[in-house]
Amino acid sequence: MNNFLVYQTDFGTADGAVSAMYGVALQVEPTLRIFDLTHDIPRYNIWEASYRLVQTVQYWPAGTVFVSVVDPGVGTNRLSVAVKTKQGHIIVTPDNGTLTHVNLLYGVEEARVLNESENRLSGSELSYTFHGRDVYAYTGARLAAHKVNFSEIGPEINSKQLVSLDLIPAYEDENKNIHGTIDVLDVRFGSLWSNIPYTLFKNLNIDYGKKLAVSIRNDRRQVYANTMVYARSFADVSMGEPLVYINSLLNVAIAINQGSFAQAYNIGCGQSWKLELAKIQTL
Amino acid sequence: MNNFLVYQTDFGTADGAVSAMYGVALQVEPTLRIFDLTHDIPRYNIWEASYRLVQTVQYWPAGTVFVSVVDPGVGTNRLSVAVKTKQGHIIVTPDNGTLTHVNLLYGVEEARVLNESENRLSGSELSYTFHGRDVYAYTGARLAAHKVNFSEIGPEINSKQLVSLDLIPAYEDENKNIHGTIDVLDVRFGSLWSNIPYTLFKNLNIDYGKKLAVSIRNDRRQVYANTMVYARSFADVSMGEPLVYINSLLNVAIAINQGSFAQAYNIGCGQSWKLELAKIQTL
Amino acid sequence: MNNFLVYQTDFGTADGAVSAMYGVALQVEPTLRIFDLTHDIPRYNIWEASYRLVQTVQYWPAGTVFVSVVDPGVGTNRLSVAVKTKQGHIIVTPDNGTLTHVNLLYGVEEARVLNESENRLSGSELSYTFHGRDVYAYTGARLAAHKVNFSEIGPEINSKQLVSLDLIPAYEDENKNIHGTIDVLDVRFGSLWSNIPYTLFKNLNIDYGKKLAVSIRNDRRQVYANTMVYARSFADVSMGEPLVYINSLLNVAIAINQGSFAQAYNIGCGQSWKLELAKIQTL
Repeated sequence: MNNFLVYQTDFGTADGAVSAMYGVALQVEPTLRIFDLTHDIPRYNIWEASYRLVQTVQYWPAGTVFVSVVDPGVGTNRLSVAVKTKQGHIIVTPDNGTLTHVNLLYGVEEARVLNESENRLSGSELSYTFHGRDVYAYTGARLAAHKVNFSEIGPEINSKQLVSLDLIPAYEDENKNIHGTIDVLDVRFGSLWSNIPYTLFKNLNIDYGKKLAVSIRNDRRQVYANTMVYARSFADVSMGEPLVYINSLLNVAIAINQGSFAQAYNIGCGQSWKLELAKIQTL
Repeated sequence: MNNFLVYQTDFGTADGAVSAMYGVALQVEPTLRIFDLTHDIPRYNIWEASYRLVQTVQYWPAGTVFVSVVDPGVGTNRLSVAVKTKQGHIIVTPDNGTLTHVNLLYGVEEARVLNESENRLSGSELSYTFHGRDVYAYTGARLAAHKVNFSEIGPEINSKQLVSLDLIPAYEDENKNIHGTIDVLDVRFGSLWSNIPYTLFKNLNIDYGKKLAVSIRNDRRQVYANTMVYARSFADVSMGEPLVYINSLLNVAIAINQGSFAQAYNIGCGQSWKLELAKIQTL
Repeated sequence: MNNFLVYQTDFGTADGAVSAMYGVALQVEPTLRIFDLTHDIPRYNIWEASYRLVQTVQYWPAGTVFVSVVDPGVGTNRLSVAVKTKQGHIIVTPDNGTLTHVNLLYGVEEARVLNESENRLSGSELSYTFHGRDVYAYTGARLAAHKVNFSEIGPEINSKQLVSLDLIPAYEDENKNIHGTIDVLDVRFGSLWSNIPYTLFKNLNIDYGKKLAVSIRNDRRQVYANTMVYARSFADVSMGEPLVYINSLLNVAIAINQGSFAQAYNIGCGQSWKLELAKIQTL
């Protein structure tokens, strides 16, 4: 049973907000060990908050408590929730879609609505804009320190009641082509990360080093259409050459070796960005 | 009695400077727990260093040792000081105004001039430009590890002798209008944080949801003049609508819900940026 | 014997990659203490990774394990290595030149090739692009936790076999002028850090406050030529005035007091950037 607390926010680290969240947690329990997932979620971007959780949580020991605060609705009647995943991680967050990917891909074992008047830093009643510090850091710290049990945090709800963003699953069409969306960009390296799992991609039956056809649309507008090599890793193609590969989450990804595919073709991410993969037909 | 050490600098984290400060502290005492306030204070900006301390320190457990290094005068005869606040936090810093807000708003119980020849990493005598590593991290670590007592750090001085930046207090004028300055921007979200405390703002007697008149000047130039709603939180107004609210430090702040007020009207911060709040007169 | 693990990458911290590396290490051993050198090495910049190590490692306690992942060759047959320095630090990294400065300036006592099939997170066999998580963080954690001995990590090689970037040593010419290269920029403050050690610079016999001639070339193109003061620290010259000083690594550096020398004259770093220092001749 560890006492790990991991923060994710869209606050950045240029001011004192994240540090105040650390201090509040260490006031709850000085032996807590606190870590950062990231504080550079783009402002108000719930989709990316959801994605970064599903990308990361599984690599942490069971029992770790995550606090994610991307909260455009702070001060509305949006709920605060805490969930326990099937793998045994706990996540505390506004109920605004942040749990979409985790709910779908990991599964939620138990979900509870946070009782905000009980689970709140004392003396913070006049502050309505910084629940990250006053509610989430405080409650995450109490959970991580085992000063409150998950079952005491508030009433249970069905995980199907959690607010969810639209997710379009990847699929195979009648021509055996594979369709998916570009879920997120690997920011630093400009790769496109899709929602097409390796297990679906395998149906195309393409060997390493062989080419396939890649088409990218933003809504209905064609943005890219070409063939490229399916490679194990960047270095299997020439510098500057594009490739399809299986990324570190075991999904299909697209990149340019030592270049930025996203910048080269001005490609974004989200549900409107569609990816289609097809075997090259030989006559 | 904790062993927490918290760093603040204007060094950024792109090179090895902050990491060297961590290493030096862990050489002093490997069990120290070290944290970051921020390393993104704008270069040489003593005002912001002072503000970020007062914004954050109070949320940390008493006894925590803070090291703040924004030090345009490194190598001059500016002094190095350590202070103990009335709440029991310790801050080690160049004596260049970094303690202005803490001295005024928290109060300093005891101030001492650092004896730099005694409180210095051995072997660093030839290095004149990185007191952050050689003097401040080293001394902060020895204080946090209780290897030196606060009283042994150097001669005591009166806290009124500490270098202080000019601070213009908020006030109420003869027409019952409230005047203050824009102390700092909430960088990520573009809100303006003023020095007008909630306790003074209350005199205007405005209810949530009611409008008041807001005027902003940079020196004598009018930059903004309009009415806006006093709200508990961003979400109480429409998306894109401005609001007056009480921020997480319980001071008056101004924002646009899900937009950036600072960018919208090109507003900065510091003593030349004046804010005036007034009740709307009904005929 | 500490259990410190320090990460350096070019991944940035905007996504979940670094956090996954933390989680993997804490799964190996929950009591590990993990720190960051920097994650802002410019993409694929092995030179800067090498420099940031030599700048920082020496300030950490002996026994600390460093993991550096700047890895443009991931997926090629480039080797992974672990070295023990003469000062007793351990560094785990792709063998791509990252150890150049450490090998030359600290000295390597023992170098071993990582057996990647043994030293790999179980279940990661299908992931070919994130050795930072699957191989390096995992192996660094096992070393830091003393779950594997350095001698068991793989076969020993001669440190002369480690891949090395070209380094041109500083030297004194027949006219007693001193020549070196600009190794790196102090990013935030725009100073130029050269490879000319104080011990060589001393031969010029220049006193504090006296001027010397400074010339900078990029390959054969002259970029700067002027005289400036040799000062102990920035504050010994006027604001906006250039200076030569001895930096925190005890090498010659050039700066403008409270300005950016690099931006002022558009100066970069690397082996093509040459610095020449000369005594001013009096007739």
